[in-house]
Amino acid sequence: MRRYAVGVDFGTESGRAVLVDVRDGSVLANAVSPYANGVIDSALPLQEGRVELPPDWALQDPDDYIRVFQTAVPEVLRTSGVDPAEVIGVGIDFTACTMLPTTADGTPLCALPGMRAEPHAWVKLWKHHAAQGQADRINEVARATGQAWLDRYGGRISSEWFFAKSLQILEEAPAVYARADRLIEAADWVVWQLTGEERRNVCTAGYKAMWSREDGFPPRSYFAALHPDFADVVDTKMSRDLYELGQRAGGLSERAAAWTGLLPGTAVAVANVDAHVAVPAATVTEPGRMVMIMGTSTCHMVLSPGEQAVAGMCGYVQDGILPGFFGYEAGQSAVGDHFAWFVEHATPEAYRQEARERGMDIHALLQGKAAKLAVGESGLLALDWWNGNRSVLVDAAVSGLLVGATLATVPEEIYRALIEATAYGTRVIIETFEAHGVPILDIVAAGGLAEKSPMIMQIYADVTGRTFHISGSDQTPALGAAMFAAVAAGPDAGGHPTIVEASRAMATLRDDVYTPIPENQATYDVLYGEYVRLHDYFGRGENDVMRTLRRLRSAARQQITGD
Amino acid sequence: MRRYAVGVDFGTESGRAVLVDVRDGSVLANAVSPYANGVIDSALPLQEGRVELPPDWALQDPDDYIRVFQTAVPEVLRTSGVDPAEVIGVGIDFTACTMLPTTADGTPLCALPGMRAEPHAWVKLWKHHAAQGQADRINEVARATGQAWLDRYGGRISSEWFFAKSLQILEEAPAVYARADRLIEAADWVVWQLTGEERRNVCTAGYKAMWSREDGFPPRSYFAALHPDFADVVDTKMSRDLYELGQRAGGLSERAAAWTGLLPGTAVAVANVDAHVAVPAATVTEPGRMVMIMGTSTCHMVLSPGEQAVAGMCGYVQDGILPGFFGYEAGQSAVGDHFAWFVEHATPEAYRQEARERGMDIHALLQGKAAKLAVGESGLLALDWWNGNRSVLVDAAVSGLLVGATLATVPEEIYRALIEATAYGTRVIIETFEAHGVPILDIVAAGGLAEKSPMIMQIYADVTGRTFHISGSDQTPALGAAMFAAVAAGPDAGGHPTIVEASRAMATLRDDVYTPIPENQATYDVLYGEYVRLHDYFGRGENDVMRTLRRLRSAARQQITGD
Repeated sequence: MRRYAVGVDFGTESGRAVLVDVRDGSVLANAVSPYANGVIDSALPLQEGRVELPPDWALQDPDDYIRVFQTAVPEVLRTSGVDPAEVIGVGIDFTACTMLPTTADGTPLCALPGMRAEPHAWVKLWKHHAAQGQADRINEVARATGQAWLDRYGGRISSEWFFAKSLQILEEAPAVYARADRLIEAADWVVWQLTGEERRNVCTAGYKAMWSREDGFPPRSYFAALHPDFADVVDTKMSRDLYELGQRAGGLSERAAAWTGLLPGTAVAVANVDAHVAVPAATVTEPGRMVMIMGTSTCHMVLSPGEQAVAGMCGYVQDGILPGFFGYEAGQSAVGDHFAWFVEHATPEAYRQEARERGMDIHALLQGKAAKLAVGESGLLALDWWNGNRSVLVDAAVSGLLVGATLATVPEEIYRALIEATAYGTRVIIETFEAHGVPILDIVAAGGLAEKSPMIMQIYADVTGRTFHISGSDQTPALGAAMFAAVAAGPDAGGHPTIVEASRAMATLRDDVYTPIPENQATYDVLYGEYVRLHDYFGRGENDVMRTLRRLRSAARQQITGD
Repeated sequence: MRRYAVGVDFGTESGRAVLVDVRDGSVLANAVSPYANGVIDSALPLQEGRVELPPDWALQDPDDYIRVFQTAVPEVLRTSGVDPAEVIGVGIDFTACTMLPTTADGTPLCALPGMRAEPHAWVKLWKHHAAQGQADRINEVARATGQAWLDRYGGRISSEWFFAKSLQILEEAPAVYARADRLIEAADWVVWQLTGEERRNVCTAGYKAMWSREDGFPPRSYFAALHPDFADVVDTKMSRDLYELGQRAGGLSERAAAWTGLLPGTAVAVANVDAHVAVPAATVTEPGRMVMIMGTSTCHMVLSPGEQAVAGMCGYVQDGILPGFFGYEAGQSAVGDHFAWFVEHATPEAYRQEARERGMDIHALLQGKAAKLAVGESGLLALDWWNGNRSVLVDAAVSGLLVGATLATVPEEIYRALIEATAYGTRVIIETFEAHGVPILDIVAAGGLAEKSPMIMQIYADVTGRTFHISGSDQTPALGAAMFAAVAAGPDAGGHPTIVEASRAMATLRDDVYTPIPENQATYDVLYGEYVRLHDYFGRGENDVMRTLRRLRSAARQQITGD
């Protein structure tokens, strides 16, 4: 008898379900459920009244997540024709830190009639950036009180993380904070909705909530120093009971079985993070091979047997990606977003027309033209900081730079320079890892850019001097979620005993491999040297023009708002 | 009886004639004659055979100049209805250094049947940049042999100038050089065609051929050091008889009278340069007020009673703009060209569509959007070196830079940053002049950008802290040429005794004046400080990345060509 698992990947704009064969990972069906309310960043989606959101806010509607279970999962069952009795488990992965306040029974506060018009009652999406003030103080107080955990996160935590968002609720909406019996990652919340039981995962706790296996959460005294009413946030609104990746969180409840069409009692895996779940799904279960998830932004993950503080990285967590290893994470904040910006704001009409006439996607057209350029031929060099720098500078205030433009510069040269800049950014991350004792021998890339752009992948290989493999699945995170479901179901149910064995059985690489071309490498080494020099000059305080420009921009906008 | 003068302005793409009233400068008619062969930069315009031109070449066809006399001048006579007997003089201004080789009777070598397929036989346009090797050696040998004249040109002469172009002919086409009885500025050549007599002007000799009233041309020994066959270039192919601006070069020949419809014997003024002739035409006849001709590039001119070497400027010439003063010149190599590049290569389709729907020019649309931004709001800063830097770095190898881009950056912000960058470039020139004892109290701007773009002029006023006036004529150079014609005709014929008096009678300013807005100045002072820091960092050798990028670009292109 065949055995299947369902993986559900909760992204920024939609949720995706896949139904896969547990034996070999082949995908029998997949379905997407776009979030009706998408990213809520200008006004709350209210039936009556209007509540505008300040800049940098990004919320979501938890009902949209439930609808993924109600529509996408039944659809994969239907289109695959698989008998629900043959589905041994369900796993999910989610963006992180995406979090929400709920009542004790898990009802989102924004679902309570009296609280719908309160922005702080909604889900705060990972890219909600309005808690920067809280993050700054979290870092400041941590340094002042000598918190050892700060080193695990490269010396600075982000405004995107759990306690920054929680503290923002407390400070800006104390009544919401008081009403919140639970503050929880959306990843754990959807698993709770499936099983009826609150089971929190170690991964988001480690990467987003400063928890470690050795030290647990930061001490009460630290939280008290942030705000007196924040002292007991962990014990009153969170939990110290954390569950391992691949563990069974529970069985599917009657209610969730009705939503999904799966059988009650089906194993539900402990929640996981979209990027992290992709590591074993991209075949990687050992140190030395970095996984890059390349989409609008890029997430870099690598396993290491030991614990090394790496300056400027997002963090590392014991067993945070795969049991038995420290999982290291880094990130580039704009990659696909970078190229999308160029296409939207700087691609001339003639190129659009040509793409239409040739029936091509505009990115394909630009990449085709850019691929014809020799290395160095554009005469351009860029710093890929259009959305700040997440690693290794960890500075949201730096910004994009382009140098070398002439009257003869054409769009595909700029486009290529932006691609190359993101590759230089990756090389900086690789070299920083290696300098701190985390070797990166080669790379597996996944995500849309990796699958669809041979030209981009060859540039990455040439710039980094590493061989690039491509994940065999075009739905790597959803496959990863299904793999963890198979582990949660366990071998007795026809699943796998460990994620390593699940990976061996279910994950593949594509045949195409990108190896560095020596002549290109030689020129890129020169260009990378120039990149590093500009990176350090503008990024490490020698010339603070980027910060000055941001300050003037803010001042100009405040003045306009004030008028 | 009314008296009229005709001015003919020879530009890069066309020639323009105006017929003006000598009493008050009012324009009765104007007409344009586009050059049939325009700028010849890819292949010679031959009836048979094909001769490709190398990169950086820019030639013209001297027949196109004659056709301006044959079409535009008759047209202004016809449309104005003025009696040719009432036209007392003709004056011309020209781009410079634009030069050609001719026979002893003035026949262009490219007009000789056997030489049409020889590129070096044609007119070398001002922007012919293929004599960089010769210019480098001219500078090198001048420094090595301690030539005092080098200081007059800011320490370096350009590949655009007369001896660089002449030496290129000698070295690359010695037969053409040998056949050339005369090497002559096109400005002087067209006057020769009008009068039948070779009369060379002091202005181009001073600004483009290293001549000075005190020292004449560089010594024979210097030319011999450049090339043995170049030793006698001045005495065999040029002339030491030079004529003052406003002097009568001769009377119109029968042949030229037939071309133009004017009477034989009509006074023809000594030739002049387009930018320089615009100074009195913009009302400026005294020190302290700079004239800026703002078009594809910008030329800056200012008068001074004394002689001061100003590092990095284009040069100064005694009586080179107005008799009685040293005329100082500086330049920015890309201004309108800069904005045109942005419109062609980086303006998205949506903006083009909006411009069409609103029936607007795309520049007007962009300027309208950019005008709504507060100073500093774009968060961007640029170095305006898309076409190198002509003053004060005098370095064609530097290139454009943009810093501060984010995913929220929109096209009008970049467009505005490019405009601001050219304004910072002007401020650098102003401050350099002032630091060397040439005061700039306020400014008169002329040219298309100055006339049509209040938003640009206000930015220039705010950035430089100077009041900007606008020349009253929309054909300032052609009006200037007509003013010099009135002086060449002299008071007895109803003209003017001096150019100063002609300027007082015939030149005007517009009523609109741009004065600096203090709040804008305060922010621009901060931004200008950042500009200067980047200017010096990238322009003065601290970081040579721009040069490295150019080197890699050339290497990549040579490799491609070599394949």
